[in-house]
Amino acid sequence: MTLFPDNLNFDGPFPRLSRRLRLGIVGGGRIAATQAMAARMSDHWEVVAGALSSSQESARSRAAEFRIAPDRAYASFEEMAAAETRHSEGVDAVMITTPNHLHHAAARAFLNAGIDVLCDKPLTNEVSEAEDLVGLTSASGCVFGVSYVMSCFPMVRQARQIVSEGGLGRINQIHVEFLQDWMTPEEVADAPHVKWRLDPSKTGKTSCVGDIGTHAAHLAQFVSGLPLTDLRAEFHVCGAPKPVEDTFFAWTRHAGEVPGTLMATRLAPGNRGGLRLRIFGSEGGIEWDLEKAEQLRFNRFGEADRTISRGHGHGVSPATERLVRTGRGFPEGIIEAWGNLYTEFAMAVAARKDGLRIPEGWLGMPTVADGAKGVQFIEATVRSNEAGGEWVEL
Amino acid sequence: MTLFPDNLNFDGPFPRLSRRLRLGIVGGGRIAATQAMAARMSDHWEVVAGALSSSQESARSRAAEFRIAPDRAYASFEEMAAAETRHSEGVDAVMITTPNHLHHAAARAFLNAGIDVLCDKPLTNEVSEAEDLVGLTSASGCVFGVSYVMSCFPMVRQARQIVSEGGLGRINQIHVEFLQDWMTPEEVADAPHVKWRLDPSKTGKTSCVGDIGTHAAHLAQFVSGLPLTDLRAEFHVCGAPKPVEDTFFAWTRHAGEVPGTLMATRLAPGNRGGLRLRIFGSEGGIEWDLEKAEQLRFNRFGEADRTISRGHGHGVSPATERLVRTGRGFPEGIIEAWGNLYTEFAMAVAARKDGLRIPEGWLGMPTVADGAKGVQFIEATVRSNEAGGEWVEL
Amino acid sequence: MTLFPDNLNFDGPFPRLSRRLRLGIVGGGRIAATQAMAARMSDHWEVVAGALSSSQESARSRAAEFRIAPDRAYASFEEMAAAETRHSEGVDAVMITTPNHLHHAAARAFLNAGIDVLCDKPLTNEVSEAEDLVGLTSASGCVFGVSYVMSCFPMVRQARQIVSEGGLGRINQIHVEFLQDWMTPEEVADAPHVKWRLDPSKTGKTSCVGDIGTHAAHLAQFVSGLPLTDLRAEFHVCGAPKPVEDTFFAWTRHAGEVPGTLMATRLAPGNRGGLRLRIFGSEGGIEWDLEKAEQLRFNRFGEADRTISRGHGHGVSPATERLVRTGRGFPEGIIEAWGNLYTEFAMAVAARKDGLRIPEGWLGMPTVADGAKGVQFIEATVRSNEAGGEWVEL
Amino acid sequence: MTLFPDNLNFDGPFPRLSRRLRLGIVGGGRIAATQAMAARMSDHWEVVAGALSSSQESARSRAAEFRIAPDRAYASFEEMAAAETRHSEGVDAVMITTPNHLHHAAARAFLNAGIDVLCDKPLTNEVSEAEDLVGLTSASGCVFGVSYVMSCFPMVRQARQIVSEGGLGRINQIHVEFLQDWMTPEEVADAPHVKWRLDPSKTGKTSCVGDIGTHAAHLAQFVSGLPLTDLRAEFHVCGAPKPVEDTFFAWTRHAGEVPGTLMATRLAPGNRGGLRLRIFGSEGGIEWDLEKAEQLRFNRFGEADRTISRGHGHGVSPATERLVRTGRGFPEGIIEAWGNLYTEFAMAVAARKDGLRIPEGWLGMPTVADGAKGVQFIEATVRSNEAGGEWVEL
Repeated sequence: MTLFPDNLNFDGPFPRLSRRLRLGIVGGGRIAATQAMAARMSDHWEVVAGALSSSQESARSRAAEFRIAPDRAYASFEEMAAAETRHSEGVDAVMITTPNHLHHAAARAFLNAGIDVLCDKPLTNEVSEAEDLVGLTSASGCVFGVSYVMSCFPMVRQARQIVSEGGLGRINQIHVEFLQDWMTPEEVADAPHVKWRLDPSKTGKTSCVGDIGTHAAHLAQFVSGLPLTDLRAEFHVCGAPKPVEDTFFAWTRHAGEVPGTLMATRLAPGNRGGLRLRIFGSEGGIEWDLEKAEQLRFNRFGEADRTISRGHGHGVSPATERLVRTGRGFPEGIIEAWGNLYTEFAMAVAARKDGLRIPEGWLGMPTVADGAKGVQFIEATVRSNEAGGEWVEL
Repeated sequence: MTLFPDNLNFDGPFPRLSRRLRLGIVGGGRIAATQAMAARMSDHWEVVAGALSSSQESARSRAAEFRIAPDRAYASFEEMAAAETRHSEGVDAVMITTPNHLHHAAARAFLNAGIDVLCDKPLTNEVSEAEDLVGLTSASGCVFGVSYVMSCFPMVRQARQIVSEGGLGRINQIHVEFLQDWMTPEEVADAPHVKWRLDPSKTGKTSCVGDIGTHAAHLAQFVSGLPLTDLRAEFHVCGAPKPVEDTFFAWTRHAGEVPGTLMATRLAPGNRGGLRLRIFGSEGGIEWDLEKAEQLRFNRFGEADRTISRGHGHGVSPATERLVRTGRGFPEGIIEAWGNLYTEFAMAVAARKDGLRIPEGWLGMPTVADGAKGVQFIEATVRSNEAGGEWVEL
Repeated sequence: MTLFPDNLNFDGPFPRLSRRLRLGIVGGGRIAATQAMAARMSDHWEVVAGALSSSQESARSRAAEFRIAPDRAYASFEEMAAAETRHSEGVDAVMITTPNHLHHAAARAFLNAGIDVLCDKPLTNEVSEAEDLVGLTSASGCVFGVSYVMSCFPMVRQARQIVSEGGLGRINQIHVEFLQDWMTPEEVADAPHVKWRLDPSKTGKTSCVGDIGTHAAHLAQFVSGLPLTDLRAEFHVCGAPKPVEDTFFAWTRHAGEVPGTLMATRLAPGNRGGLRLRIFGSEGGIEWDLEKAEQLRFNRFGEADRTISRGHGHGVSPATERLVRTGRGFPEGIIEAWGNLYTEFAMAVAARKDGLRIPEGWLGMPTVADGAKGVQFIEATVRSNEAGGEWVEL
Repeated sequence: MTLFPDNLNFDGPFPRLSRRLRLGIVGGGRIAATQAMAARMSDHWEVVAGALSSSQESARSRAAEFRIAPDRAYASFEEMAAAETRHSEGVDAVMITTPNHLHHAAARAFLNAGIDVLCDKPLTNEVSEAEDLVGLTSASGCVFGVSYVMSCFPMVRQARQIVSEGGLGRINQIHVEFLQDWMTPEEVADAPHVKWRLDPSKTGKTSCVGDIGTHAAHLAQFVSGLPLTDLRAEFHVCGAPKPVEDTFFAWTRHAGEVPGTLMATRLAPGNRGGLRLRIFGSEGGIEWDLEKAEQLRFNRFGEADRTISRGHGHGVSPATERLVRTGRGFPEGIIEAWGNLYTEFAMAVAARKDGLRIPEGWLGMPTVADGAKGVQFIEATVRSNEAGGEWVEL
């Protein structure tokens, strides 16, 4: 039995698959709960297995929180990959939500087992590891998604479409920032979910860049359609002393010598989801803000300013509508964006199983290639910062 | 085995139940998909049965959309109630999402079978039917929730807490409105999901009042803690001619002679989720807007204005935090509010099964009593309108 | 010498007059300082005389605050009217800013002397007095402006133009409210500038209605172009006991049976300049808010929402631009709106002196007829409230 | 007779001077009309003389627009300085609103004549010229104001006070940007009021930096109290080719090694008055936006966010209130900010005449020293840009 229905119409809404796909969880941090919630919401997935701790006891108790049966609660991802491969109803795919330094090995294990992967960003802590995963993905034929979830908000998709259709004219400037405030109090560094983010052996050479900076960088490229080519960056520790940056500023060049700025910080009191993208062109500008994710401002020079709201019709494209769950005015949020990511991931996984060829543009899901570009971005900021903020190529 | 864990702590987060509860769907309109999504998100429910059409064939095909097995796709709610009662793993509860005129009979069937119910508003089309359900709920000992979902937004709960703690001083005025625009184009009346809403044999004596007006009325009472005692109302047909109102205005009195206004319309271009509550007191005021559901404005006279954002800490109470899924700044929306309703409904259903007594205030879920008050509200607006807008008691 | 230039072009900006007109001040309350500021800003006026107190000494000292020479500081408006008529460079016009109960006599004195008048609202405390002024204005040929200053914001003019051009389709609903909070603390009633507003012998039969309610009523009629024909109203005292209302609600009918609501209060903590107009039609809606006076929301059903900003071009009409002083983004405020009123008043006064006929639509300044309608509105709310909120005709 | 009243109270509102001071206008561009409007509004000034063109005929006709008598309409500032010095009622001060390259010579002429000056920014095109004016101001004892008018908004003053009182804790980051869109269409470069701004012989080595960039730089320093010490900058021409930048980005260091960013552009469609300041500290953050100039956001970590509105009380300091004209909710704008600048300039000019010593902190007016710092800022951006964006000291 195929997963896709016979009468699949790529121009319509995403189809219901003939069964829920089976999802495994590797890592099981805070974000795993959010992703599991979104996967359930999408109705394309059921969570059936997990490697959530290296102690067998803890692995089982944490698996129970996801309603995973004890016999599919593993104490290592290697064990999980091996066992699930043998299982008659083994996982179709896994989400990887470990600390950064384990992404590479975990992803490798599942790709080698022919199991599709949706991995947290940053993809890896080293460029070479990222390239390894790109190669292995290609060799294995597996699906590999990376959780740049901001690109799954309907109004971000709408923004990309407006830009691609020339709604801004020639792009002149690209500005993106991600401001948060949760690291403002000094004592927060000791919280368990924060500690590893400040430990270079786990977070890698950066903390803020790799966490929220890559979200900003991906969003700017995703919407503009213009890859980052060069940047200069400087790192700051604005709060309590720590071995990695909590704040950074960058100047950027996108393809075609388009200049821009990019910054991120976790010490901006009053800002929480302060991810803001602004693209200015010769005829118009576009602005999107995570805290007002339901609206997209689209301003054509010489006309009244426009606000496009998520929903059906009213200037929203069919491709955007495919990601819409509730009517305009009944707010959706980030769990729905995660739900969109899990829907698109399910489509890709199911298509591989069905041997179905997906048309160009049907899915906007970020892939391992986007993940690798993110690692290159991080590495470029490190190189530039170490060189006193010199220009470096990506 | 009990559903609740042994170490249940009513001051902590809502617990995970030992198994997912089994949910049936009666009706299966558009909103059923949203509710099913929310139920899955909550991880307290699995959808296992449904009565989604009176034709057996259609009942099965629509059930498949919810991944309901064919043998539990029923062609009537009577059949469903009977069969599920006999089923060894029968539904623990049902959601009722039929057109309004069927709520009473459907709810009756399940209550009589000892099955808990979560019913769409308005509870019924007649006050006598609502009273019947109140009595039957009491007699049966069943849990009966009513989907005044706006009361499940965290910032609405926070507003209620601020008011109950005296943050506004003595309450002087209560204003609530619900403005939408989707009925603006005349041709929309012919859409299938709209047709029954304009047919008095199904929608009852009102259309706009019963649909969005009751949301507004419940919200005002829920947050203020002051029941509506009197009102005067007038109905309008602002758009194309139709047999029921699409717009209405009311003046209200809440307990203690507190005056207010209430209005709703579906013909306000540029408004979609325009549900706005404002309560003004002798020391402060509170304002909440569905389209900005993540924030609550709380203004104390003589001080800088305050904005409280959904999340942990920063002035948010522990009871509010229990309903929080993602951090401040990472937006939640109405599906999460539905998820909160399904979580609280699950707690109530599980408590009945476990024979557990739930402490006062632990759940904010609207009940059959709230549903009946909503029907009385609708009936009062009809009486007042027919009497030329005279004052009537609720 | 004429006041207008020879090459006057009614399609261009307002012209500079050949000399500043001479303005007298009658009353001299707080608002007189604001109006004098605006008159100076307009550069069409110089303040040269005043009747600011009934004590000669106080009249002189308060006149000095406006840089009025002592010999033109009068202790009564009768004396002022007489003396200024004889003066070789007597006032061209007066502003009347006394408590309400003196408006009629003061205006009478100056009209009888052939001196043009700009009078605060409400025009008078009695309908008969208002009618008397309408008649006297007509008989005298004088210019008589009334300070419904909200109609002088550029974006309000733009709103009126959009409505008159059919931008909303058929008008279905008109809602206006004016919420303030300054009367929240009980002790404010004793402040000198408040006391007369709560004394029926001065403020008339209403306080909140006559003060801010008439602003709301004028704005709704000015923008919609539809006169109020009927209303029902109820008065409330929400704060400390007082002999006049501090809050009122109304349902309205505008010409053509268009329904609406209108309310005003001074006890809404967190609201200061909460004057908000919303007009909904069969094709679009318009919303304007005094606290965001620089922007006008104009939403066409089925299109992206539009925001029109004050300034030149970008969808702003030439007639609106005539009232623009600074570029879009460099905010203007209410003193500029007053400046626009004083500019249009100057144009009207100068036109009378030059015997110039002003083309229809060149000036939007509210006149004595608008003032009289405001008094009828107040009187209608009183009648309705006394009759238990019955419908009354205006 | 002294200008100040005998009972001058520095803690009260600004006093009325015993006569209006006499103001001359040098330059007479668009902005002169705005400034004259503000000067009149303040009631501390009358415009009596001007050098508005180098042709005698044009000088007279343009003077007439300001109601300046023909015999005080001069064809050069040298002539004006000489004649006004001899005049029995000569100007007390001049505003200089010429293109940038003439500021130095014009200011010099008046300082040499002992006449006080209020000069547009940038103060001069060369650092040496700025230093010359600083020296000459000191030597002459004249008052010299510079029109960094953004610092005269009440809520900007309030922000400075909050920062200086430690409301943010230790300052960690300072971000400021000024985005406009008026240069988006290519043809605008040919407009008369734009042409000189793109001609290096008049605008100096920069266009966007010297115009709006210096506003941003001044605002950041004014509110934070931390001088800029170092920066790196890069210039861009984002629109049509031109000999000077229309966009620039900078990284900054303020005193105490506090990092920040600064950028400005005139090619950001949808942005007009997009001057936004954000300062983040160890305990709180502050945000102010010119387009929402009436509000100041002040967020303390761990508390509900606060919005302070311009007006009396409600958390506004007495020093801020001194600059308030209308009540909270009745909006003020930039002409009022200009009015505040002209009020403070009048206080300074009058104090010099009276030999009155002004207490520290009574006036916030930017001085020639601030103007000179602005020129140093411009020069530093040029140096850095020419060196490929290297760090330079100010």
